[in-house]
Order: sequence, then structure tokens, then C-alpha cells
Amino acid sequence: MMNNYPSKMIEQAVEEISKLPGIGKKSALRLALHLLKRPEAQSLQLAHAVVQLRTETKYCPQCHMISDGDLCGICASHKRDESILCVVEDLRDVLAIENTGQFTGLYHVLGGIISPLSGISPGDLTIESLVARVASGKVSEVILGLSPTMEGDTTAFYLTKKLKEFPVKLSTIARGIPIGGDLEYTDEITLGRSIVGRVTYE
Amino acid sequence: MMNNYPSKMIEQAVEEISKLPGIGKKSALRLALHLLKRPEAQSLQLAHAVVQLRTETKYCPQCHMISDGDLCGICASHKRDESILCVVEDLRDVLAIENTGQFTGLYHVLGGIISPLSGISPGDLTIESLVARVASGKVSEVILGLSPTMEGDTTAFYLTKKLKEFPVKLSTIARGIPIGGDLEYTDEITLGRSIVGRVTYE
Repeated sequence: MMNNYPSKMIEQAVEEISKLPGIGKKSALRLALHLLKRPEAQSLQLAHAVVQLRTETKYCPQCHMISDGDLCGICASHKRDESILCVVEDLRDVLAIENTGQFTGLYHVLGGIISPLSGISPGDLTIESLVARVASGKVSEVILGLSPTMEGDTTAFYLTKKLKEFPVKLSTIARGIPIGGDLEYTDEITLGRSIVGRVTYE
Repeated sequence: MMNNYPSKMIEQAVEEISKLPGIGKKSALRLALHLLKRPEAQSLQLAHAVVQLRTETKYCPQCHMISDGDLCGICASHKRDESILCVVEDLRDVLAIENTGQFTGLYHVLGGIISPLSGISPGDLTIESLVARVASGKVSEVILGLSPTMEGDTTAFYLTKKLKEFPVKLSTIARGIPIGGDLEYTDEITLGRSIVGRVTYE
């Protein structure tokens, strides 16, 4: 019986690919064989893109979103309301919120979320820079756009403590039953919170 | 609204990663952000492994399995029965069959499967080399270990036509209801074939 891969190259590739989140050894082998089978230039392009991503990516000095130049497109735009900041975990959240077309303020990208289990502490995030932006006096509202998870709540708690000394309105994106969702099939915690946090008709 | 990524580096990385099978744009962005967040050395190691995979992988000259040296471990082993060949699509199938511990012969790795839709013709596979191995006279049985799909059946049909002029036994791995499977939930084609191909008690 063969327990090991017959080649060091394939073993190495499977090892590295399977370190990616959500990719196990079997998928990694499938991907490695795909990388071997398709035209060589394509596979080398992938490797090149990964190297470039790590060595040449820059960040917006104001909101810390990934960006090529100085200020990112959103921070540089004159159409955005710079008195409202939405604090998010990473670029994916910015893209998701931008796609709704419902937010015209600026962002602040934390670059992660406080997670003692993963070894991510407040010092690893762009929190000092957020405090400095709020302290500058241009901001009137900070919306916390964090996921309703344990880590998201921890981060929100930490941020509210840091920011409550400033004269800004602090808010969080609404949590409740998703539009189109069914009461019966909503989990108890979400349903419970949506009752406690009920909104009065005006 | 932002329809494009705010950085060329991230756009390029997402583009290349999403070319991999089974990975869409959303997963590609998730992976790209992961590559950015974890230690730089790890991400560069991945890129390096991909480059090495493409530029340094060698193949066994006899069975065409990926291998580092001359003959692969299986072909070089004295414990294997070199009169039986099992023809498979790629390394994954070799690993799967080896894990059963039920096969002691040698393999022949085609390096793909005949698929006009994907532009893979018999000339792209190691079929000539298979014919040469069979023609050498050392082989008494060729087992076709191909997937029971349209492409697998096409390849099997092509191979039986190529090999029937030689005095070797041709066989295929059994198709039928999987062990532990439920008759009721087996698809009609598998069930139909398992009735037509029923095995008489001896």
C-alpha cells in the first residue's frame, strides 16, 4: 500500500495548497493535478499573481482598504459623505455593502477581527487609526458593520469602549430575520434578538 | 457602486485563482485575502511549490505516473505482479486503488481520458506506450480502471479496439450498487446495469 505521494513535487504542492482555508488533502491533490495538466504558462501566472499580491499590494492610508495608489477610490470621491464611517472587517465586507448601493459614507477596514483563539489582538488591527480619524472631529457617526458572531461582538464591544469618549453617534447594522426568511425556520437566538430589538412603527 | 476591485494586484490574484476548477470569484477573493493576511513566507512558499510542480515534476518512464526518479516505486517493486496492468486516468486513481490493498499488479496512467468536448484526443494520452507494453508479451491481463462516465466508456471502447489483437485478457472494474448502498435510492442506470451484469453464485 502506498501511503505517500510518489513525488516530492506533488507532495509539496498538496501540502501548500491544503493549507488554504476550506481545502483538504483530496481537493489539494485535484488542484495540483489540474495545475500539472493545463498549459504551463497558466500555472506560472497563478504563482506570479500570488507573489505580486504579497509583495506589491498597497493599502489606502486613510481607510486601510487594499488599493493601488494613495487614497482609494472611495476615500478620494467627492460624492461620499465623510461624516459617516462604516467599520468593517475586510475588503469583502466593503464590496458587499457597496453592492447594496445603500451607503454613501466612508469605510474603515480593520484588517481582521479580535479573536483571542486565532491570536488576533486589538494591536493587530487598524483601531488606533480609527480612533485618530474619529478624534479629528470630522466624523459624526460610526456604524459598526461587523458580523453577528462571538468575535464580531467582542470587537464591537472593544470599539464602543474606545470611541464612547468622543462626541459621535455609535450604531450597528441591524440584526434580525433576513428579508424573505421564515419565522418558523429562524434560529432561536436570531428570533429572540429580533423580539428584544423590535422597531416601533413611527 | 463599486463593480471592480480597488487594486490591480487583488484583481489579478482573484482572476487567476478563480480559473481553478470548483473555485468561483467569491471563494477566490476569500483565498486572496487569506494569502494577504497570513505570514508572507507561507504565501510565497505556495507560489514556489506551484512553480516547482510545473518545472521539475518527472514521470515514471514505464507507467507514466508522477515520480521523482527513474522507475516509480510501484514499477520498481519486486513484490508486484508485472503480468497484470491496471489502466487508470491519473494519479488520484492509483492512490485510491492502492488504498484498497486489493491490487498487486502494475499500473498504466493515461494522463487523462478521451474527451472530444475538452479537446483531449487519444494522441494526448499515453496509449501508444500502453500498446507497446502489451505488445512486449509480458502482460497477460489488462484491467480498465476507468470511471463509468461517457468519457470513461469512450476511452474503454477505444482501448479494447486497440488491444484486442493481442493475446491478453481484457477486463473492467465491476460496476454496480456500492457496498452499503440502498437499492431504493440507486439511480436507474446503475440498477439496470447491475441486473444485466448480475453475477451467478458459484
